[in-house]
Amino acid sequence: MTMDMTFLGTGSAYPSPHRGASALVLRTEGECWLFDCGEGTQTQLMKSQLRAGRITKVFISHLHGDHLFGLPGLLCTVSLNTNPDPQQSLNCVDIYGPRGLRHFLRVTLGLTGSQLLFPYAVHELEPTTDQSPEEGQLGLEVTAERLPLHQQEQAGRTISLDASTDSYLLFEDKRFVVKAFRLFHRIPSFGFCIQERNRPGRLKTELLKELGVKPGPLYGRLKAGEPVSLESGRVVLPGDVLEEAIPGRKVCILGDCSSVLGDEALLMRLCSGADILVHEATLGNQHREKAVDHGHSTPEMAAAVARACGARRLVLYHFSQRYKPCSMHKEGDEDDVSELRRQAEDALQDSGIEVTLAEDFLTLPIPLRR
Amino acid sequence: MTMDMTFLGTGSAYPSPHRGASALVLRTEGECWLFDCGEGTQTQLMKSQLRAGRITKVFISHLHGDHLFGLPGLLCTVSLNTNPDPQQSLNCVDIYGPRGLRHFLRVTLGLTGSQLLFPYAVHELEPTTDQSPEEGQLGLEVTAERLPLHQQEQAGRTISLDASTDSYLLFEDKRFVVKAFRLFHRIPSFGFCIQERNRPGRLKTELLKELGVKPGPLYGRLKAGEPVSLESGRVVLPGDVLEEAIPGRKVCILGDCSSVLGDEALLMRLCSGADILVHEATLGNQHREKAVDHGHSTPEMAAAVARACGARRLVLYHFSQRYKPCSMHKEGDEDDVSELRRQAEDALQDSGIEVTLAEDFLTLPIPLRR
Repeated sequence: MTMDMTFLGTGSAYPSPHRGASALVLRTEGECWLFDCGEGTQTQLMKSQLRAGRITKVFISHLHGDHLFGLPGLLCTVSLNTNPDPQQSLNCVDIYGPRGLRHFLRVTLGLTGSQLLFPYAVHELEPTTDQSPEEGQLGLEVTAERLPLHQQEQAGRTISLDASTDSYLLFEDKRFVVKAFRLFHRIPSFGFCIQERNRPGRLKTELLKELGVKPGPLYGRLKAGEPVSLESGRVVLPGDVLEEAIPGRKVCILGDCSSVLGDEALLMRLCSGADILVHEATLGNQHREKAVDHGHSTPEMAAAVARACGARRLVLYHFSQRYKPCSMHKEGDEDDVSELRRQAEDALQDSGIEVTLAEDFLTLPIPLRR
Repeated sequence: MTMDMTFLGTGSAYPSPHRGASALVLRTEGECWLFDCGEGTQTQLMKSQLRAGRITKVFISHLHGDHLFGLPGLLCTVSLNTNPDPQQSLNCVDIYGPRGLRHFLRVTLGLTGSQLLFPYAVHELEPTTDQSPEEGQLGLEVTAERLPLHQQEQAGRTISLDASTDSYLLFEDKRFVVKAFRLFHRIPSFGFCIQERNRPGRLKTELLKELGVKPGPLYGRLKAGEPVSLESGRVVLPGDVLEEAIPGRKVCILGDCSSVLGDEALLMRLCSGADILVHEATLGNQHREKAVDHGHSTPEMAAAVARACGARRLVLYHFSQRYKPCSMHKEGDEDDVSELRRQAEDALQDSGIEVTLAEDFLTLPIPLRR
């Protein structure tokens, strides 16, 4: 199963002509999951090789405008380009994000008279009070849903922190388990851990031949993990005839933060060995104080998280708009985004962790583990 | 006083890489007035020669997302790029638009924790029930302001229709009178008439010499319309020594509509002789039924309004995204935006009214009348 990640916006604070506001897409077999949706994301999608109509899930890390203001427009445009088929009901778009997101969509879609051709549901994460300074917490009077459901809205879940794992279980299906974890920022922010399930190892066909199991349905049942009884009465267990399981891929995408919150051991286990860890690096190491003051990170801080998790690759994004893309950098420019990569690499010497700078429209393949 | 108009987005329904969503700026002596603010307007502004920080007034024709979703982000970005000067209080940004706009901004800015460095006020226009089909009317339960003012919000006015003129008086100052009028659309929509005040004619200097009035402060008082007493006891009236007044310029900008609503005579007087009349032409004449069904106009319909007002120039905008900009048009393409100009020109034969197609970043000077 192919999997890749495309960055649609890598700038912080606001979209600019050379860096869009925050948005990235994780794609698996044509299905697109969108992480954050700053203003202009729909236009960035049109410029990319992705199809907005393939978005089945949206994850909003936190409610700052540069991560959110593109969402109502994106939903409207996807709907406009949807071919209504009365024979077929369209799938629900699941949207995950902090408390307040449901109200945001209900008001923005409601006041603009926006009707969608597909249903949507907002599953809200309940932040804890230590995720931000007090002034960053939304009072209940601000998020309270005083309006009924939007016409196309289905009731969503409200998801609370699971103290035993220090994370939020967003959903699990045959292919994935997706969890969120807490970050510290000026307002409550979240990271997402997308864990692909392990896949069964290859069948040991030589051994199966010896045992007298013929290729066909029995192979399938063994691969699916079921024991199989042969005519001889012998029972073949999957573990006997399968190579070692192929571990699923893991991708961790962190929203804006100056630190990860919670039980370090539990979180490092959750994110351990991520194929890709995407972490913000708004400002260079020399601006650490300013970065932290604003709830942000430097390359060195991002590197420390990647090292603690034993990630394979650290991808930096969410750069201050002062950092032009590499392709636009001119000799003598004060701010050089390549310097941010060097700072992370310095902090990761001898770790074997690769550092990548995200740019708008960069696509990273995430190959199967072997 | 120089005056010009720049189109930032000329596409309907949603922003695309070749046509932004609705937005245009009327600029007078460095001050910018923004008309509509679709998603991506702030990025279009950055690409243009205009400065977002110069925006002092915003006018929203109606609450559809392609005219509105860029507003919260624009305000945030202007604020981020404002230099806070504790010695100087920043001017209030006045925002005019239909009922519901106040609530929209309060919720979008509030839930995203957006603090602005400048104050803003929303002046709401009360629509009448005949401006849209019933399903397009926002119930009071949707627009009710259940939240207190945003921290940077100043109380705005609520403006009702003045039946004697069939228009809404938005404001008047020494230079301008700005009114709104009603349009019919799927949801209540408005047009705006910006009337520059007449300027006094030139002083008849030969005559003044004969009368014994010396150049200096007395000239200024006469030009300002004050009578002046000479030492001889003679009183000179401004009307005696001024050439004919120079009529102020007039610009009319109509939001989405399939028709203008109200007393035709009054409205034609309001818009009569406009230097520029900006009217939507979402689809070509051959799609008239579909256009009207969706509350939109064709070039022929726009031309009829321009003719009725005796406008000097008709500018068409808000084109369906099917119409690529002229510069991107390829031989054999089915939809040709130049065809829309021809359709309007056909309808305006012998009228002397010039037709212009708006494109993103087109700037039209509006010269002083002589």
